[in-house]
Amino acid sequence: MANDPSFAALGLKAWKTQIDRADKLFGSLSSEEVLREIAPGRNREIAPGRNRVLYLWGHLTAVHDAMLPLLALRERLHPEFDVAFISNPDRSRADIPSHEQVRGAWSVVNAELWKGFEKMSSNDWALRHSSVSEEDFAKDASRNRFAVLLSRTNHLSYHLGQAVLARKSERA
Amino acid sequence: MANDPSFAALGLKAWKTQIDRADKLFGSLSSEEVLREIAPGRNREIAPGRNRVLYLWGHLTAVHDAMLPLLALRERLHPEFDVAFISNPDRSRADIPSHEQVRGAWSVVNAELWKGFEKMSSNDWALRHSSVSEEDFAKDASRNRFAVLLSRTNHLSYHLGQAVLARKSERA
Repeated sequence: MANDPSFAALGLKAWKTQIDRADKLFGSLSSEEVLREIAPGRNREIAPGRNRVLYLWGHLTAVHDAMLPLLALRERLHPEFDVAFISNPDRSRADIPSHEQVRGAWSVVNAELWKGFEKMSSNDWALRHSSVSEEDFAKDASRNRFAVLLSRTNHLSYHLGQAVLARKSERA
Repeated sequence: MANDPSFAALGLKAWKTQIDRADKLFGSLSSEEVLREIAPGRNREIAPGRNRVLYLWGHLTAVHDAMLPLLALRERLHPEFDVAFISNPDRSRADIPSHEQVRGAWSVVNAELWKGFEKMSSNDWALRHSSVSEEDFAKDASRNRFAVLLSRTNHLSYHLGQAVLARKSERA
């Protein structure tokens, strides 16, 4: 990408930047630290329990896993993550995937996405994503795969801003 | 943008989505609430003071203001925000801009950016941004204005994820 990068390539670069940042942050945490709350409230009555890092990490993994079929790359690898990390809030279930399982799934899912991304041309990114119908896409062609990439990159940034607060000395 | 949107238009849409989200969040806060800490630590020795919402808001305003010359749109409107919100941490200075001043600057700066964005073609977005030299840009054309847009959109998302934690009942 030394010269004349496509806008799609710039979108991929932005995605990669945030994934690398997440890898570094999540990878630095111990099994004790991932159970730490994001931003624990001083007054439990006012702020009754924030999400734990493991929940955010699993949530991001589930959302990224769902990008595989959304971008027509392949079937999902970990659909079972949804019940633990998307449809239910943190601490509502005892049986959520472990630190080890989340770490493994995060790594495999993002590698699989990247493998698919590298094969996509700018034209591919302009195609409709799989949750919009052909009819709706004809009316609004902005609902394409590139829009999904940008939206999920911002979603990752949003939660990274929160996850970083679980580190002891982070100011915000 | 009903049909065949350019990737630049999709980048603008992603920016607008986050700005609207920020407007809604920041606009809903009282002058007392903007002085609330993001994620106050339960144990002050472990987490010695998080940034206040007003600091994050001012920080985002300063960073967005700096985009005006970076994207060759115009000179800055509020260079004086940098000393309060970029070069120094929160609470290190007594004389930072007020809630009213930050609110006004945030609104004017983003309106000015949007006015400029609307006039930019895809070709304009592919031009170098003003902090990269012509020589360096010749070596790496990914350092263009579209890359700045994507990067600043993610920066906004990152801090929005934190700002939302100042609301009472937010889980994360």
